Amino acid sequence: MELITDADAAAAEARLAGLALRTASVPCEWAPGELWLKPENLQPVGAFKIRGAGNALARLDPQLRSAGVITHSSGNHGQALAYAARSYGVACTVVVPEGAPRVKVAAMHGFGAETVTVAGDRRAETARELAGKHGLTLVPPFDHRDVIAGQATVGTEIAADLPGVETVLVPVGGGGLAAGVATAIGARCPRARVVGVEPELAADAKQSLQRGRLTPWPDELTRRTMADGVRVGPSQLTFAHLKARLDGIVTVGEEEIFAAVGALARRAHLVAEPSGAVAAAAHLAGRGPGGRTVAVVSGGNVDADLLARAVTAAG
Amino acid sequence: MELITDADAAAAEARLAGLALRTASVPCEWAPGELWLKPENLQPVGAFKIRGAGNALARLDPQLRSAGVITHSSGNHGQALAYAARSYGVACTVVVPEGAPRVKVAAMHGFGAETVTVAGDRRAETARELAGKHGLTLVPPFDHRDVIAGQATVGTEIAADLPGVETVLVPVGGGGLAAGVATAIGARCPRARVVGVEPELAADAKQSLQRGRLTPWPDELTRRTMADGVRVGPSQLTFAHLKARLDGIVTVGEEEIFAAVGALARRAHLVAEPSGAVAAAAHLAGRGPGGRTVAVVSGGNVDADLLARAVTAAG
Repeated sequence: MELITDADAAAAEARLAGLALRTASVPCEWAPGELWLKPENLQPVGAFKIRGAGNALARLDPQLRSAGVITHSSGNHGQALAYAARSYGVACTVVVPEGAPRVKVAAMHGFGAETVTVAGDRRAETARELAGKHGLTLVPPFDHRDVIAGQATVGTEIAADLPGVETVLVPVGGGGLAAGVATAIGARCPRARVVGVEPELAADAKQSLQRGRLTPWPDELTRRTMADGVRVGPSQLTFAHLKARLDGIVTVGEEEIFAAVGALARRAHLVAEPSGAVAAAAHLAGRGPGGRTVAVVSGGNVDADLLARAVTAAG
Repeated sequence: MELITDADAAAAEARLAGLALRTASVPCEWAPGELWLKPENLQPVGAFKIRGAGNALARLDPQLRSAGVITHSSGNHGQALAYAARSYGVACTVVVPEGAPRVKVAAMHGFGAETVTVAGDRRAETARELAGKHGLTLVPPFDHRDVIAGQATVGTEIAADLPGVETVLVPVGGGGLAAGVATAIGARCPRARVVGVEPELAADAKQSLQRGRLTPWPDELTRRTMADGVRVGPSQLTFAHLKARLDGIVTVGEEEIFAAVGALARRAHLVAEPSGAVAAAAHLAGRGPGGRTVAVVSGGNVDADLLARAVTAAG
C-alpha cells in the first residue's frame, strides 16, 4: 500500500492557503512540563477536518467536482466538506449516523449541505450507494490519500513553529490526522515522537497496533466514550501509516477527558470538544512521553451543557 | 504631548518576539457580515497586556530593571508584568484594587509576584508611594509610551494579516490598546476605521471625546459593568492618542456583552472575559460601522460561573 509522503503534505499546505486557518502553536505556561497547543478548534468549521476535505476537493477534477460530493461523518468532516464545497459552489450531501451531535448537523445545514441519517454501521455503505446512484464523488472522512495529506499540514505547521519539538500528541479516531502528522513530523523533525491518543473506551487503534492487524471495536463499545469524534476506527490505509510511522498510542479515561475540556477552557481559553481534548488530556494526566510537547486540539464543537459542566467542575 | 509613532510599534514588534504570541486573525463564518477575531485571550497571561508590559520591560535600563518593578492593575496588566518580570528574573509587585477577580490575582502569585490590596481609587497613588520607598520602577497599565507601543503590535499584526481591513473594533478602558492600535492601523491601513468599544455603564472615554476633555467617571458608576477590565478611564496621554487617531467610540449593553461571551465560546471556541468580549459584542449587535471587520478579543480571564452561565444561556 502506497503511503503519502512529506511532499504530499507540502503540496497540500500550498493548496489550503485561504481556506484553512494557519493556526499558531500556543504556549501553556499554566501546564506542567512544556506544553503547546495546536488550536484546530479555531478552524472555520471548528475542526482540523477542513484541511483534509479542502485538499481533497482542490485535487478533484473540476468536472467531477461540479457534479457534487458526498461523505459520511459523525459531524466534523461533514461540516468541513460542506464548507469547502460551498467555497467551490458545488453541492454536498452528508450521511450522518443516528445520535450525531445536533450542533454539528445544524452546522452542515448552515453551510448548505443536505444530510441523510442512518444507523451508525450503515453510514459508509449508504454513502457509497448514494454516490453511485447520483454521480457524486465520495470524499471519505479519512480513508483517502488526499484527505490524509491535508491533515498532514497540521504537522508541517508544528515543525515550522517548533523545530525542536520532542513529542506530538494527536487524537486517533479514523487515523487520518495521526497518519498525516506522523508523516510530516517524521520527515521534518525525525527526533520527535508522534504519539496517538485514544479514549480507553475506544482504544481499537491501540489494540490493532499491538496485534499488528486491524481490530475494529463494535459500536456498542465505542459509543460509551463521550469523545464522539474518535469512536470510529482506522481503515487499512490509515492503519498502514500508523504502523509505519506512529511511535505509539496512549489512552485516557473519561474523567481525564472531561477534566481536560475544563482546563482548556479555564486556563488556555480554548473551547474543545471531548475528542479535541484527548491529546491535551494525555499530557495533563502525565501519559505522554514528555519533553517539549505539542497537543493537537482537534475540534471545538461541543454541546453547551457539557462545556458548562466541565468549566465549573473542580475549577 | 508627544504621541507614539508607527515606528515605535514596529520596534516593539521586534522586541516581543518570543515573549508574546503572534496571534492569527480568525475568520468567523458563523457571524453576520465579515468578521475576524484577534484572539489575544490566547496570550500567555490570557490578555494583550503582555505586549505592553513586555515592551516596557525590554526598554528599561538593565540596572533599574534588576531592582524590580511595580504596577497597579485590576488583573490582566498585573499578570502580564509578573510574567514578563519572571522572564527577566526580576521582582514584581502589583497593587490590586479590592474586588479584583480572584482568578487574576491567583495568576499573579503563580508568576511569583507579590500583591498589595487597596481601595480602587487608591491604587495608582499606592503604587507610586511603594515605588519611591523601595526603588522600584513603576510600569503603569497604560499611561506610558512604551506600554502603548507594545499594545500597538496588535495593530501591526492585523495590518499584516488583513491589509484590506475596513473596521477594527477595540475595547477601551485605560485606552492603551485603542491608542496603540489606532496608531498602527492609521499608518498602515489609512482607509480603515478604528472604533473603540465601551460598556454603556463605563462610557467615560466616549463622553470625554464628545466633550473634548477627560471626563472621568467615579468608581461607583463604572463598577456596575461586568466588564471589570474596562472600568478604568484614559489618562491624558492615552486620551491625546484617542482624540487624534480614533474614529469614534460605540457602546454595548450588559446583555450584549454577556451574549457575546456565550457566542464566542459556542461559535468561535474562544473563552473571553466580559471586557474581552465587548468589541465582538459591538459587531454582533450591529453597532460597528461594518465592512471587513476585526474585533479584538482582548482577554480571557473570566470567572468559571459566569462563563458557564453565558455558554448555556440562549444557545
